[in-house]
Amino acid sequence: MGQSVFVGVDIGGTKTSVSVAHNPPLILWRAEFPTLPEKGPDHAIEGILQRIREGLDANGQTLHDIASIGVSCGSPLDSKSGVILAPPNLSTWKAVPIKQLLEDQFGVPCYVENDANAAALAEFHFGAGQGMRNVVFLTMGTGLGAGIILNGQLYRGSGDAAGEIGHVRLSASGPVGHGKAGSVEGWASGGGMAQVAAKAAEQALADGKSSALGNTVADFAQMTAKHVWEAAQAGDKVACDVIQTSGERLGEAIAILVDILNPDRVIVGGLALRMGDAILEPARTVVRTEALQANAERCAIVSAALGEQLGDIAALCVALQDGLHGSLSQYALMK
Amino acid sequence: MGQSVFVGVDIGGTKTSVSVAHNPPLILWRAEFPTLPEKGPDHAIEGILQRIREGLDANGQTLHDIASIGVSCGSPLDSKSGVILAPPNLSTWKAVPIKQLLEDQFGVPCYVENDANAAALAEFHFGAGQGMRNVVFLTMGTGLGAGIILNGQLYRGSGDAAGEIGHVRLSASGPVGHGKAGSVEGWASGGGMAQVAAKAAEQALADGKSSALGNTVADFAQMTAKHVWEAAQAGDKVACDVIQTSGERLGEAIAILVDILNPDRVIVGGLALRMGDAILEPARTVVRTEALQANAERCAIVSAALGEQLGDIAALCVALQDGLHGSLSQYALMK
Repeated sequence: MGQSVFVGVDIGGTKTSVSVAHNPPLILWRAEFPTLPEKGPDHAIEGILQRIREGLDANGQTLHDIASIGVSCGSPLDSKSGVILAPPNLSTWKAVPIKQLLEDQFGVPCYVENDANAAALAEFHFGAGQGMRNVVFLTMGTGLGAGIILNGQLYRGSGDAAGEIGHVRLSASGPVGHGKAGSVEGWASGGGMAQVAAKAAEQALADGKSSALGNTVADFAQMTAKHVWEAAQAGDKVACDVIQTSGERLGEAIAILVDILNPDRVIVGGLALRMGDAILEPARTVVRTEALQANAERCAIVSAALGEQLGDIAALCVALQDGLHGSLSQYALMK
Repeated sequence: MGQSVFVGVDIGGTKTSVSVAHNPPLILWRAEFPTLPEKGPDHAIEGILQRIREGLDANGQTLHDIASIGVSCGSPLDSKSGVILAPPNLSTWKAVPIKQLLEDQFGVPCYVENDANAAALAEFHFGAGQGMRNVVFLTMGTGLGAGIILNGQLYRGSGDAAGEIGHVRLSASGPVGHGKAGSVEGWASGGGMAQVAAKAAEQALADGKSSALGNTVADFAQMTAKHVWEAAQAGDKVACDVIQTSGERLGEAIAILVDILNPDRVIVGGLALRMGDAILEPARTVVRTEALQANAERCAIVSAALGEQLGDIAALCVALQDGLHGSLSQYALMK
């Protein structure tokens, strides 16, 4: 029998990864495969089971060596029962009892968290939130959500739905996110930034100006935050203004969090990893004027520190949680 | 030696009350006196010391019978060191070490919390938040602030300044609260409602309409939320519209809290005690459309249950906190 290991499973709309670790955040082995949600949950679950077995084999271990399994996945889900309810990025997944499936298969405890909460745990324990007490992690991908650590503990809310800052309104109208025009997700997520950019490029075209963001309506429909960033790096003025706008709106959202939660740190993942200060500096400037001075001064706004490893370490952090449903296991606390 | 007692001290801008209890929330004895902040903190502190001694005498007790003292007071303060920093409603109080003063005088532990946090504890343990896990209490007096209980624990924030929902912006311009035009406090506190009413009455006058809110500029300058409520009860249309507006803006603020914190309950004190559904029903309607459906359905929006006793019980709840700075003592947990 080998040394006991933790298994992390990070289920995304595009790819699913499985990682194995004795001693997180150090990862011994990992593998990923396309999730292909259009093929239904069984396809991905089969892939997960197979990769877990491969990961054990690769390290000379058996099923008996698993200490626990952590699953990180999109909302909504029920973290207590471990059921994935109906994440928008996994359109065919409806009420998938992932916890029970994995526990039945491997006979070890399995914990399930939404990806924002899992990433918040990872940055809190091993990344930019180390040594802090109150930390907000913002996902900034296609959508925008928050994982919240308060008094050193993950805060899930009464219905597993805390952290929905993406749904908060910033303006009466505007780009749509989380089903709401003018929301934080509409203005400041990757999907929102693409909408802001499409509109800005369309305006540039109407004004007879050229922009690297594209010059046809077909281009605008294909817009992504990646296009915006590439155009901005090439010096395109319209693209730079779009990033400035989304950064300022991100700052309005962070100011709300800073006034309500008075955190030590707000950590931004996703786009902020690539764009860095181009998006965070406009946000910081807005927070300094919009939030209470003492709260703003208290709170640093930084990019996630775990970079490309964040998703894997996030899923492993979920595995580290003990049966008390909230506090980390003794193992993690000793680190 | 008598049975041990808890002492609560509620320091407000107008009056200070001292209450004594064996078995909170049952109050054995209470007294109040005018705080008179213009006379400086020493005046009120002398009054507090005297009333505590009177309260003990009245119950046949001595200083040795005090278990602990709780102080509830306006922000900003430092709850760890127990120093009252510079509350706007106590203009002459600057860095008053109330905890040390009372501990030196009576030789028992003294705890200090801001009034919103203290009221949140009181409603959580003995009022409308009983049996819940996540509760937000909103003060709705001259200002507007929040006391937040998460995972059954008071959440103070990193610099004792969580809960500043009153400072959050709802509109680019508008009535001023917390030093910010268009803020939640500007729109929905008592002071904010008075501004909304003054503007509405001025408009009514300009339009040649009569309103019970007053018909001269001098009236508008004297406007209070109490005037608005009295006029509304007499059926004044302008006053009713003002309450509707403040209630809707309160709903926008609650929707933000509901999306970010996913609480079981939002409990509103102050004006809501008097105005009830006249202010809460417009708020509930807005929350149903502005917040995420699941989060809105989860969260009841109610008036504080402890009514006129809230301030006294709030201060006593501060006394019930043990030295761990956050959890309630065994005494309270057994209840």
